[in-house]
Amino acid sequence: MDTHKKAGRRPVKPYENNRARMLISCPDGPGIVAAVSHFLHLHGANIVQSDQYTMDPEGGMFFMRIEFDMENLEDKLVSLKEDFLVIADKFQMKWDIHQLSYKKKLAIFVSKEDHCLVELLWQWQAGDLDAEISMVVSNHPDMKEYVESFGIPYHHIPVTADTKAEAEQRQLDLVNGQVDLIVLARYMQIVSPALIEPYRNRIINIHHSFLPAFVGGKPYAQAYERGVKIIGATAHYVTEQLDGGPIIEQDVQRVSHRDNVNELKRIGRTIERVVLARAVKWHIEDRILVHQNKTVVFN
Amino acid sequence: MDTHKKAGRRPVKPYENNRARMLISCPDGPGIVAAVSHFLHLHGANIVQSDQYTMDPEGGMFFMRIEFDMENLEDKLVSLKEDFLVIADKFQMKWDIHQLSYKKKLAIFVSKEDHCLVELLWQWQAGDLDAEISMVVSNHPDMKEYVESFGIPYHHIPVTADTKAEAEQRQLDLVNGQVDLIVLARYMQIVSPALIEPYRNRIINIHHSFLPAFVGGKPYAQAYERGVKIIGATAHYVTEQLDGGPIIEQDVQRVSHRDNVNELKRIGRTIERVVLARAVKWHIEDRILVHQNKTVVFN
Amino acid sequence: MDTHKKAGRRPVKPYENNRARMLISCPDGPGIVAAVSHFLHLHGANIVQSDQYTMDPEGGMFFMRIEFDMENLEDKLVSLKEDFLVIADKFQMKWDIHQLSYKKKLAIFVSKEDHCLVELLWQWQAGDLDAEISMVVSNHPDMKEYVESFGIPYHHIPVTADTKAEAEQRQLDLVNGQVDLIVLARYMQIVSPALIEPYRNRIINIHHSFLPAFVGGKPYAQAYERGVKIIGATAHYVTEQLDGGPIIEQDVQRVSHRDNVNELKRIGRTIERVVLARAVKWHIEDRILVHQNKTVVFN
Amino acid sequence: MDTHKKAGRRPVKPYENNRARMLISCPDGPGIVAAVSHFLHLHGANIVQSDQYTMDPEGGMFFMRIEFDMENLEDKLVSLKEDFLVIADKFQMKWDIHQLSYKKKLAIFVSKEDHCLVELLWQWQAGDLDAEISMVVSNHPDMKEYVESFGIPYHHIPVTADTKAEAEQRQLDLVNGQVDLIVLARYMQIVSPALIEPYRNRIINIHHSFLPAFVGGKPYAQAYERGVKIIGATAHYVTEQLDGGPIIEQDVQRVSHRDNVNELKRIGRTIERVVLARAVKWHIEDRILVHQNKTVVFN
Repeated sequence: MDTHKKAGRRPVKPYENNRARMLISCPDGPGIVAAVSHFLHLHGANIVQSDQYTMDPEGGMFFMRIEFDMENLEDKLVSLKEDFLVIADKFQMKWDIHQLSYKKKLAIFVSKEDHCLVELLWQWQAGDLDAEISMVVSNHPDMKEYVESFGIPYHHIPVTADTKAEAEQRQLDLVNGQVDLIVLARYMQIVSPALIEPYRNRIINIHHSFLPAFVGGKPYAQAYERGVKIIGATAHYVTEQLDGGPIIEQDVQRVSHRDNVNELKRIGRTIERVVLARAVKWHIEDRILVHQNKTVVFN
Repeated sequence: MDTHKKAGRRPVKPYENNRARMLISCPDGPGIVAAVSHFLHLHGANIVQSDQYTMDPEGGMFFMRIEFDMENLEDKLVSLKEDFLVIADKFQMKWDIHQLSYKKKLAIFVSKEDHCLVELLWQWQAGDLDAEISMVVSNHPDMKEYVESFGIPYHHIPVTADTKAEAEQRQLDLVNGQVDLIVLARYMQIVSPALIEPYRNRIINIHHSFLPAFVGGKPYAQAYERGVKIIGATAHYVTEQLDGGPIIEQDVQRVSHRDNVNELKRIGRTIERVVLARAVKWHIEDRILVHQNKTVVFN
Repeated sequence: MDTHKKAGRRPVKPYENNRARMLISCPDGPGIVAAVSHFLHLHGANIVQSDQYTMDPEGGMFFMRIEFDMENLEDKLVSLKEDFLVIADKFQMKWDIHQLSYKKKLAIFVSKEDHCLVELLWQWQAGDLDAEISMVVSNHPDMKEYVESFGIPYHHIPVTADTKAEAEQRQLDLVNGQVDLIVLARYMQIVSPALIEPYRNRIINIHHSFLPAFVGGKPYAQAYERGVKIIGATAHYVTEQLDGGPIIEQDVQRVSHRDNVNELKRIGRTIERVVLARAVKWHIEDRILVHQNKTVVFN
Repeated sequence: MDTHKKAGRRPVKPYENNRARMLISCPDGPGIVAAVSHFLHLHGANIVQSDQYTMDPEGGMFFMRIEFDMENLEDKLVSLKEDFLVIADKFQMKWDIHQLSYKKKLAIFVSKEDHCLVELLWQWQAGDLDAEISMVVSNHPDMKEYVESFGIPYHHIPVTADTKAEAEQRQLDLVNGQVDLIVLARYMQIVSPALIEPYRNRIINIHHSFLPAFVGGKPYAQAYERGVKIIGATAHYVTEQLDGGPIIEQDVQRVSHRDNVNELKRIGRTIERVVLARAVKWHIEDRILVHQNKTVVFN
């Protein structure tokens, strides 16, 4: 673990200054790919990678992700976006362009279980999560020393029945406008609707079951009780409906009658941290589009 | 496909005449393994393989599977079982001994979807399912010619709202006492309690979802609607509770936003047939013990 | 298994008459996506799905697969291809356009082991392999009756040391110009270079190991000897180098010390047939591009 | 991460004082299970779990693992072992008994890549690796501060062409007789035969490929070059033959043409650390028996 990496930030690689990613969702119709790629070509962009998918060709939805290089991107970006409005309007697009030189800012929420947090910090430090970790927020003080050893601010905000409203306000004050993505890394409190609303499709939770099986509390105990032969974990965007938001990623592992609840938890921890880290990575890399309650993941 | 294999039966290999499998469940206590293995040794048996598992050591349940060789097994089996009663009583055992020379008799129930049936017949013909397929029962006539080309009797018993009671009685008359195991190979009717009772833990169903997710009808449509990233199938023993019986085996496969309901069904068919065939094989090989609503699978 | 499906052919669905797939490989450069999509738009095509990938952005290779709808495609296809030559020349493209209404013609080569053939025929009959199976060629007579029951011609061409040259000539005469793809479904003879040359990247073989482990003969015996904990199978295009051609697909399954060589073979058979069927399906659906000794698979 | 866990040690749970595991390998013959279980019963032991496997019943090898409880085990262990010699001699057994109250002592060897070390330390701290980590040995100083923060001694022993012999001697002096297991957690030097000999089947290495594919250096570059669709990692005991020792565990993950060598490395890191940790856990829990160049793993 190189100490020179410690600071919550990630360096910008030279090629990233001139590279961007474009995400588009719109009703399908003829000529969208042509219009977008022609537009980019006229503006001097070179498409490095593109993925496109149409859900139900006739009368369906169109989704696209384009990664492109453009010289002096920084200078041109504002006018590029302005110019694109004509096309965006014509096809009723929801769209965005993300520069790779801008590192998304993350807040990680955690309670007492540390495995997901440790994984995210390790992957971030190894350079696999290309984002800035702006802060860690917890309702417990346990991880303070560990987190701060990475140079990342740690905010301990206790949550009790009495202080819940106040605690949620403090959380909101901390993150709102300051971070681009909130990661619930086994944060065991229900998140306030006041936080969900401004962070629609920007709060990722890890649920420790293969959703929709075992919604709610104590999923490993439920799984043991039901005698399943495979357990899993699910990363999803948080909505007002408990464990009901758009699923980003799932993975599983085989278990047997020999595994009691504690073994299921132990095995589950590895699935949880891998699945959560994968979902966070995909979000950071602008690989996820949400439509209604589902995700399109270009990976 | 060798025509000489066609007849619903499987040949007995020479070593199988002198080999048997013993299954034991009982409350745990000291000396069970010693008592059983000492008993077998005294009776001239050589243990080829044994698996033992105690659920929760203190005050829990003891499960054991022993495969052993014994010269002139056929002649000795009755007295062996009689002699064992002393040990069985002492430890309050549920137990059984199965000779490998006896091939379990199967009835396969099927409706219109043929993939699970085709898989079972192919595996049976390849020698991978070491059982006798005594009959195929269906509420549709579609597979008659195909099944009979294997020399296996095909019973077409239509089921309508009016004839349901009568149809169930015909099914019961056909199988009861004639077969050891009933396999529901995508049989789309609810099985009568009159059949479940005598075939407790001897009816295997394949459910086309990763239970307990998507209980009931149209699981692939439910899975598509929920946007899951992995689909699965579950083989379980049939109980009076729909899709609620002891789970024997599950498996899964990754899917993506590109897969519509029909693709999910197509991918699911391969999971279903593999999972069902595995569960049937384990049952045939006496690898499954049921305790309360869970299975212990020694594989 | 519906008898009305028997004939080696697949029906054309209405929407397929106006749909085509385009495959492009060329050196990367600016404006390719724009040029192609603009061209298609001008000719009245609507892009249903597109995938694009650039291997090593700077000075690398560009790969693209586009699926599009075009009214009266049949009438326009010749001129569409002619018009495209300007763009193809400019970017030095290797390219092709495949109409979905044309069903690729397959020859399946098989020896004595039937599992891969049975799988392909079952998937084809279930409508999952959208191609025409023109013939089955075998060096053994065993599967003749089974294959012909599907209405598919079966050619028994024995291969001995003495008759090898003659047998290969007969094979070549049978397939050359008559089929689009040759599938070696556990065909245990080395294929003649005279066949490989005209069918470059159009002969798919299934190797019963996780290549490049266990190249050559008896891979399961090799795997058992080495004590591996996972076995696999590999589908690849056939080249002059034994088991050395471009890999299309691989899959694996966990095994244990309990599995002897016969068990490995049994487990392996399911991997083999699934992997081969997947590779054949992707080839049929024009999802595979070959560059040097590797595949780009858009799936 | 609880600071009170920091010290390299693991606490002994009360039930562990009276629990032990017995491992047996011997030529197969009648009465072994009976003799062993009868012996244990006579000595007041209660068998909690037992696994037995006979490789090739006739004239093969017998392997057994028994976990048992015995009151006042500490006091009785010496005489228990002495008494067992009669049985052990009779059946020509290789055998051992391990008390659970004794925590195996580990030395972890590491070079610059830290992911396997971080995983082992995290799992150890989470209580999932029930051993004592006595020391970390490295040819680089990089991880010193991190390792020492756990209270674990860190020995920096540089290895150069000139100092190789001396360095190996220093390693040998450090570990010999002091540790029970050496874990090569991406240690990039060839281990000295002088170390292998006394630690036969007690040095675990993680090889970053799915052995026997890609033996030797730069396996991810080799895998990329060959265009495989799945990559893997292999944990094995170290022998004098490079990457040729008995395989303990393997696992894999799917990759695609989009993954360049760096992506393969990134994906591979997660497989490596999971596979290595699993193998170490099984060794610690006495689940592995080695016969010739293969492992029997009772898990």
